[in-house]
Amino acid sequence: MSKHGYETGRLNLPFVGHCTFGKQPICLEWDKIEADVAILGAPFDMGTQYRAGARFGPRSIREASTLFSFGHGGAYDFEDDITYLPVDKVRMVDIGDADIIHTDTINSHANIETGVRAILKAGALPVVLGGDHSVHIPCIRAFDDQPPVHIIHIDAHLDFVDERHGVRYGHGNPLRRASEMSHVTGFTQMGIRNVSSSNREDYQAARDAGSDILSVRDVRRLGTEGVLARIPEGVRYYATVDVDGFDPSIAPGTGTPSHGGFLYYEVLELFQGLAKRGDIVGIDFVEVAPDYDQSGSTAFLAAQFLMNVLGFIFHERDQRAG
Amino acid sequence: MSKHGYETGRLNLPFVGHCTFGKQPICLEWDKIEADVAILGAPFDMGTQYRAGARFGPRSIREASTLFSFGHGGAYDFEDDITYLPVDKVRMVDIGDADIIHTDTINSHANIETGVRAILKAGALPVVLGGDHSVHIPCIRAFDDQPPVHIIHIDAHLDFVDERHGVRYGHGNPLRRASEMSHVTGFTQMGIRNVSSSNREDYQAARDAGSDILSVRDVRRLGTEGVLARIPEGVRYYATVDVDGFDPSIAPGTGTPSHGGFLYYEVLELFQGLAKRGDIVGIDFVEVAPDYDQSGSTAFLAAQFLMNVLGFIFHERDQRAG
Amino acid sequence: MSKHGYETGRLNLPFVGHCTFGKQPICLEWDKIEADVAILGAPFDMGTQYRAGARFGPRSIREASTLFSFGHGGAYDFEDDITYLPVDKVRMVDIGDADIIHTDTINSHANIETGVRAILKAGALPVVLGGDHSVHIPCIRAFDDQPPVHIIHIDAHLDFVDERHGVRYGHGNPLRRASEMSHVTGFTQMGIRNVSSSNREDYQAARDAGSDILSVRDVRRLGTEGVLARIPEGVRYYATVDVDGFDPSIAPGTGTPSHGGFLYYEVLELFQGLAKRGDIVGIDFVEVAPDYDQSGSTAFLAAQFLMNVLGFIFHERDQRAG
Amino acid sequence: MSKHGYETGRLNLPFVGHCTFGKQPICLEWDKIEADVAILGAPFDMGTQYRAGARFGPRSIREASTLFSFGHGGAYDFEDDITYLPVDKVRMVDIGDADIIHTDTINSHANIETGVRAILKAGALPVVLGGDHSVHIPCIRAFDDQPPVHIIHIDAHLDFVDERHGVRYGHGNPLRRASEMSHVTGFTQMGIRNVSSSNREDYQAARDAGSDILSVRDVRRLGTEGVLARIPEGVRYYATVDVDGFDPSIAPGTGTPSHGGFLYYEVLELFQGLAKRGDIVGIDFVEVAPDYDQSGSTAFLAAQFLMNVLGFIFHERDQRAG
Amino acid sequence: MSKHGYETGRLNLPFVGHCTFGKQPICLEWDKIEADVAILGAPFDMGTQYRAGARFGPRSIREASTLFSFGHGGAYDFEDDITYLPVDKVRMVDIGDADIIHTDTINSHANIETGVRAILKAGALPVVLGGDHSVHIPCIRAFDDQPPVHIIHIDAHLDFVDERHGVRYGHGNPLRRASEMSHVTGFTQMGIRNVSSSNREDYQAARDAGSDILSVRDVRRLGTEGVLARIPEGVRYYATVDVDGFDPSIAPGTGTPSHGGFLYYEVLELFQGLAKRGDIVGIDFVEVAPDYDQSGSTAFLAAQFLMNVLGFIFHERDQRAG
Amino acid sequence: MSKHGYETGRLNLPFVGHCTFGKQPICLEWDKIEADVAILGAPFDMGTQYRAGARFGPRSIREASTLFSFGHGGAYDFEDDITYLPVDKVRMVDIGDADIIHTDTINSHANIETGVRAILKAGALPVVLGGDHSVHIPCIRAFDDQPPVHIIHIDAHLDFVDERHGVRYGHGNPLRRASEMSHVTGFTQMGIRNVSSSNREDYQAARDAGSDILSVRDVRRLGTEGVLARIPEGVRYYATVDVDGFDPSIAPGTGTPSHGGFLYYEVLELFQGLAKRGDIVGIDFVEVAPDYDQSGSTAFLAAQFLMNVLGFIFHERDQRAG
Repeated sequence: MSKHGYETGRLNLPFVGHCTFGKQPICLEWDKIEADVAILGAPFDMGTQYRAGARFGPRSIREASTLFSFGHGGAYDFEDDITYLPVDKVRMVDIGDADIIHTDTINSHANIETGVRAILKAGALPVVLGGDHSVHIPCIRAFDDQPPVHIIHIDAHLDFVDERHGVRYGHGNPLRRASEMSHVTGFTQMGIRNVSSSNREDYQAARDAGSDILSVRDVRRLGTEGVLARIPEGVRYYATVDVDGFDPSIAPGTGTPSHGGFLYYEVLELFQGLAKRGDIVGIDFVEVAPDYDQSGSTAFLAAQFLMNVLGFIFHERDQRAG
Repeated sequence: MSKHGYETGRLNLPFVGHCTFGKQPICLEWDKIEADVAILGAPFDMGTQYRAGARFGPRSIREASTLFSFGHGGAYDFEDDITYLPVDKVRMVDIGDADIIHTDTINSHANIETGVRAILKAGALPVVLGGDHSVHIPCIRAFDDQPPVHIIHIDAHLDFVDERHGVRYGHGNPLRRASEMSHVTGFTQMGIRNVSSSNREDYQAARDAGSDILSVRDVRRLGTEGVLARIPEGVRYYATVDVDGFDPSIAPGTGTPSHGGFLYYEVLELFQGLAKRGDIVGIDFVEVAPDYDQSGSTAFLAAQFLMNVLGFIFHERDQRAG
Repeated sequence: MSKHGYETGRLNLPFVGHCTFGKQPICLEWDKIEADVAILGAPFDMGTQYRAGARFGPRSIREASTLFSFGHGGAYDFEDDITYLPVDKVRMVDIGDADIIHTDTINSHANIETGVRAILKAGALPVVLGGDHSVHIPCIRAFDDQPPVHIIHIDAHLDFVDERHGVRYGHGNPLRRASEMSHVTGFTQMGIRNVSSSNREDYQAARDAGSDILSVRDVRRLGTEGVLARIPEGVRYYATVDVDGFDPSIAPGTGTPSHGGFLYYEVLELFQGLAKRGDIVGIDFVEVAPDYDQSGSTAFLAAQFLMNVLGFIFHERDQRAG
Repeated sequence: MSKHGYETGRLNLPFVGHCTFGKQPICLEWDKIEADVAILGAPFDMGTQYRAGARFGPRSIREASTLFSFGHGGAYDFEDDITYLPVDKVRMVDIGDADIIHTDTINSHANIETGVRAILKAGALPVVLGGDHSVHIPCIRAFDDQPPVHIIHIDAHLDFVDERHGVRYGHGNPLRRASEMSHVTGFTQMGIRNVSSSNREDYQAARDAGSDILSVRDVRRLGTEGVLARIPEGVRYYATVDVDGFDPSIAPGTGTPSHGGFLYYEVLELFQGLAKRGDIVGIDFVEVAPDYDQSGSTAFLAAQFLMNVLGFIFHERDQRAG
Repeated sequence: MSKHGYETGRLNLPFVGHCTFGKQPICLEWDKIEADVAILGAPFDMGTQYRAGARFGPRSIREASTLFSFGHGGAYDFEDDITYLPVDKVRMVDIGDADIIHTDTINSHANIETGVRAILKAGALPVVLGGDHSVHIPCIRAFDDQPPVHIIHIDAHLDFVDERHGVRYGHGNPLRRASEMSHVTGFTQMGIRNVSSSNREDYQAARDAGSDILSVRDVRRLGTEGVLARIPEGVRYYATVDVDGFDPSIAPGTGTPSHGGFLYYEVLELFQGLAKRGDIVGIDFVEVAPDYDQSGSTAFLAAQFLMNVLGFIFHERDQRAG
Repeated sequence: MSKHGYETGRLNLPFVGHCTFGKQPICLEWDKIEADVAILGAPFDMGTQYRAGARFGPRSIREASTLFSFGHGGAYDFEDDITYLPVDKVRMVDIGDADIIHTDTINSHANIETGVRAILKAGALPVVLGGDHSVHIPCIRAFDDQPPVHIIHIDAHLDFVDERHGVRYGHGNPLRRASEMSHVTGFTQMGIRNVSSSNREDYQAARDAGSDILSVRDVRRLGTEGVLARIPEGVRYYATVDVDGFDPSIAPGTGTPSHGGFLYYEVLELFQGLAKRGDIVGIDFVEVAPDYDQSGSTAFLAAQFLMNVLGFIFHERDQRAG
């Protein structure tokens, strides 16, 4: 009897079987990761200032990703006439979740960092499923022994708060924390909008830290090419995507929605361009809180986006490898 | 006492009364249909590969359609300065649902086919409310003794799978099955997008079958007129609309959502043009799964779209009749 | 071709077809009702003091009732070894909804009254689907030219408010209004409970009007037989059932839930006894607000209860007729 | 101990504390309002013709508004480089809700009117949270001793019905009623669309009353500047915003959704222009029915929009004051 | 003009007005509390081990409590023939929420403790609305300068974990922490059930600490009187009620549900007896997570229970005072 | 680095990590199962006659089961003073799902049968998570080379339909099909109730096949011991549990709910007795349709029940093994 129990193979419909990211194999021994991409869940949401629930982000994204799992040698896109993520070339594993310690932010973050370091050590691309945006802090910290990165940040909020009431590791602080790390060379922050996105001091601090801050309307005015032209070329990018950077119409399931956000292709085309312009070496996708979206659209967005972007990254790597 | 029991008539608010499509009369004797349009429910969802629930599509669309029912001699649209669907000119009936046999795809499909044939025999325009997209197969098969049709297909997915694990009548197969019928002269497939829409072989097969395949972005690039220009003129169209051709933001209640879909006017204006360009002789609207959309938006979309399109069709028929 | 379009008949699964009560035939000409039971919707909820939404009670109960519709000559209950509602003996029709006039309580109530009078004129048993509890007022008023009735009232609240801020026809007033009608000979009010059920003055007024008021715990202490013994025997009963008389565990979908209510068999067995003890000549079932119960349990409760009770009534009538 | 009980102040996260609009202070003594803006809830929904539930609009908008409450001296918007609503300059109070009398439209409306008059007497800008659109009638009536206003109307529906079945104060009538008041000098009605928006007679009546009626597509064709140019300049505007003027994708939680509506910035930029072009002296925001939007997006839309627009109004007033 | 703006007073329906507990007055200056009962929200949920969301417990309970707010001199219960909570005798205030610091358990707990101390200093009975069960720790700690208390604990889980992975202040630890305080003289823990409730060591530790541990079935076997007889008489009780002590049928909206729990009257009658047997001097009601209960039943349970119990407490105090 | 990546082990909170049943290890190679219990998902719902959605039963039960996963050497129950499922004694594996072929009942059932046979071949106890009740057919068929079994059936419906419209493998047929198998020696069917449970002919057929049919009220009248006494002693039991045998109050998430069902301990105590009376050698738990229960209660019920029953079975096996 063959694997999964049927001699003639499986149809393996999306709704059938365990939920791993894209129905990829599980690898729970973190010192034995052999893959090009490794998915890590970071179900931490104690950093939220309004609605919690992002702790179920990883499970919901994995479940949604099964819809995008059934390929035939890879994922064919007729628009590009490319088969992305060819199964024989791009190995993906799902390494489970970082261990979360309730009431304890410091140790929970440390555990996330451990996971990302394990992925990096294995030479794989880390894709972290949040959790709230504070998980970006340990994710980016884990890159401190890697070559420098430029951060691509999609969000409704600037997340550049330094400290309030002693809080330095909440979901309003991650980009500020990143700005303090020497292996982070700059930022392009996109989607930032409206009166709840920042205050004047934090905005100034981000600018002083060398950030290029673009609202949704700025991005639309500039166009994909115009935006890309402002981003350093040929460097390593780390992408941190807060799902509330997208519009509430397609991403209602999040803690702090803000109207007027990005639509799907706006961000997707940006990332397709980005994959050509440099190398995306790490991703965290955060703030999916599935209990606020009974339709599941938000989790489908996360899963579809990640599948698409991973396809772009490895296609370009393959192209570059010639 | 007059009909419905009040001498002075009824206000007949949308939330009052039985749910038939547009609050139109019921005709359960299928050999006595006397109408210009006949609505048939096809609550079959055993063809789905991910989320089921489209079996409640017909009931949800009927319920939603009551919101669009209270007219005064017809449905006035000030943008066009036209009163569509004048009650004295366009007769609509709701003939109920095709009988569905659980566990039995073949007989369920046969029962749907019987319903559509009865409508055609009565000389009425069939409008079928799915159900999953596999119901398109019996719908289009029922046209085999009618003059040829060109299929207009709105969908996120190509639905051109031939056979997998013996499955030939699931919701991934309908357009392939249609392509095998001699009364189908061609296809325009629009909204097809992303890596889960097809594989390379099926895409090629569709192209070989003479299909014009346009992504959402293709349609936007071409514009309504540009798209219409690619569609054969002066012929008979059969429209099969999968609600997931629309964007999840307005159609979250479906089994296999895909981000980056059409917005309302994009499809509506296409159909307004289509009604002028030829004669739409049949419609199936499928994959509304209301339990995944607590707001009801998806069912409102289906109901509003069908009301609008029926208005266009009969207005143009009336214009042509002079 | 036979009725409903298939020569070999229909399987007619619950999820197939239009939603009428129990899938019974529609009769919209109220002067042509020929039936033993007639179902009337009264989708009025302007009388509510907290959550509205009971306007969708009739539609939700009709939908739920389709689950209990597929019989084989009737509805067999093995516990009683009886086939209830034999199709050849008990004729049921669904006469649609009373016309509701938004902003206008008086005329909406008048329209409900018209419907009930039409049913009574046809000699059928009226079953009215609310709507909020204020619809009891026109229902019971329509009996003013009938022989007297004793009211059986199931509710968490006493509903015996006379007038506050000019309001006399809200959902807190119906039993008080009924108490003012000469054809109402008495009341048995059951399920009344907790501090929000009444105030001391209204309680005293109900007692003065000859009401026997029993809390849920009273009913449990007395037992079914003990309760029945307190109810006048051999008279005509009119039953007004507020779904919040039941426990929120089985009836969450209502406007003003109150914990500690009746479970299913507690009320059912009471009604089975009641059907033997006298003749139930009219029923209103009110306050189902389906949007507050995504599971549908509350509407299933209403539908199942009504099916069961109608079975009891006509079985006993048949027994008495010998 | 300082206010709110902590010597070192409060972090006051959005999810903490009572729900008042923007966490602003409550003032329940209506003859003691001292503020620039006063928020009044009008939880009346007996005027609805389809889904009710707008009675919970005020509570849901207040809850959602807490997300937009935590400022630092005001609400900074980096796109405009302006700190809106500086706490030392713009005083806001929440005066609670108008008293609603169930079953009684006339007195409920009168109570709303009393509240708006109290706000006007205090010299504050009234912002009324509906409730259904019929609450616009008492709102605008309360301006009858004020200088004239031009009405800016955002809606999917024309709301210009005169009378049907005796109904003159339902949610289909408010603009017609306003048109009969001498202190209303004209209308700009935007977002009106589709066959359920009006009938030919009402449309003509609105035109005859001097209304400029623009569909969503009209507004898009004209552009923000083009639309503004059609609106009288330098006058006093009263804005009545029905949330169904927005697209169901961002405002599903409403009673009568209509596809093809406005997106966020389309309306926001119009109001930013309007605040420059004249003085907005009153606002009602209506038809948020939160129970139909489990994600909360609709209430967030209302809260965010009102915060933004209030910012524009007082910024422009401050600019004009020099 | 009178308070709330109407000369003739207000009808003040439940759905009207701001949400304070029972529509009681707000007192945000914690050094000026003058009341017999003070309600404090403790919206902290970082101590949860499964589903979060209890941070919205206080808001949901306040909203639900408005249903139980409209009295006439008090809350009449005809079963007891008592008017509970006479408005002229029992003064209640809602003092808002303790300030919560995201990511910071220690300071959040300290802020809760400050609130309870302020209430105690004012001589009022503290009623704390959780938040997760860890908030019991600061609540009970605030009693350290008060006379000793016996803890009455309703819960599915023993909550007697000492420390795991460094966690000592999560929602599995509160009773263990309480057991370490010298002003806590003993425990009666009821509702504890099933394999997830404890482990053998913690169970033994609780027994060693002098706890009387009763499962739901134990309580049923003993009966109300039997249970009361095991509880020390004439002492001061502090009640900590985890809503998951109740059955999921009436309390689905919680983080860690466990089937087989208490029904409403089982717990209510216990507390009615308890109020006679000694003096209840403090209450925390925790773990209501409203987003998991779309019907609102769980929040209604909390509100109704607290209203009922407060009635019992002050009635007995009044009786004792003679 | 140890398994799961942390040197000091994991706290492993319920919300962390992949969803397998009870967080037990996965074994996808069905010829290498080494365990005492093997969990198989059977996500087939094409046999349903009303609401579908049971295809997501396995995923929802696995997710819910993580709440009951964190043990310390096993699952301690203080009521019995037993540590059930000691990790060193009872090995459990989750073998994933049977492959489902949309539109194809026969092959889907065959694939389920293959899975159960693989478990039996490995000498493990099969626990199958439905899916609709038709999956019982392949489950019980897989026992045809095992010693005979007596079937314990919990359900609201008799499920004894022979054939209607050609359907023999739908969710109304499973017990009839089982009755035709020679390795099935008898039935005890419990929970059967109300008019939709059966018709007279099927009831008689079940009785003729030697079934003991007990309604919920029968079971309550007999008591646990009374019921057990009617069940053959010392034999092998196969249990098929339809979640609608439980009351809708605790199991709303199912396709065909029926009021008046079992509460938790009623069924649990029966199975605890059963485990002592004979050997339970297989279980299928079916008809959990999670999308109809936003609270998750139904899936928690399934998970908790299975954990409890597995504990009973292996405890008794251990006792018997001495």
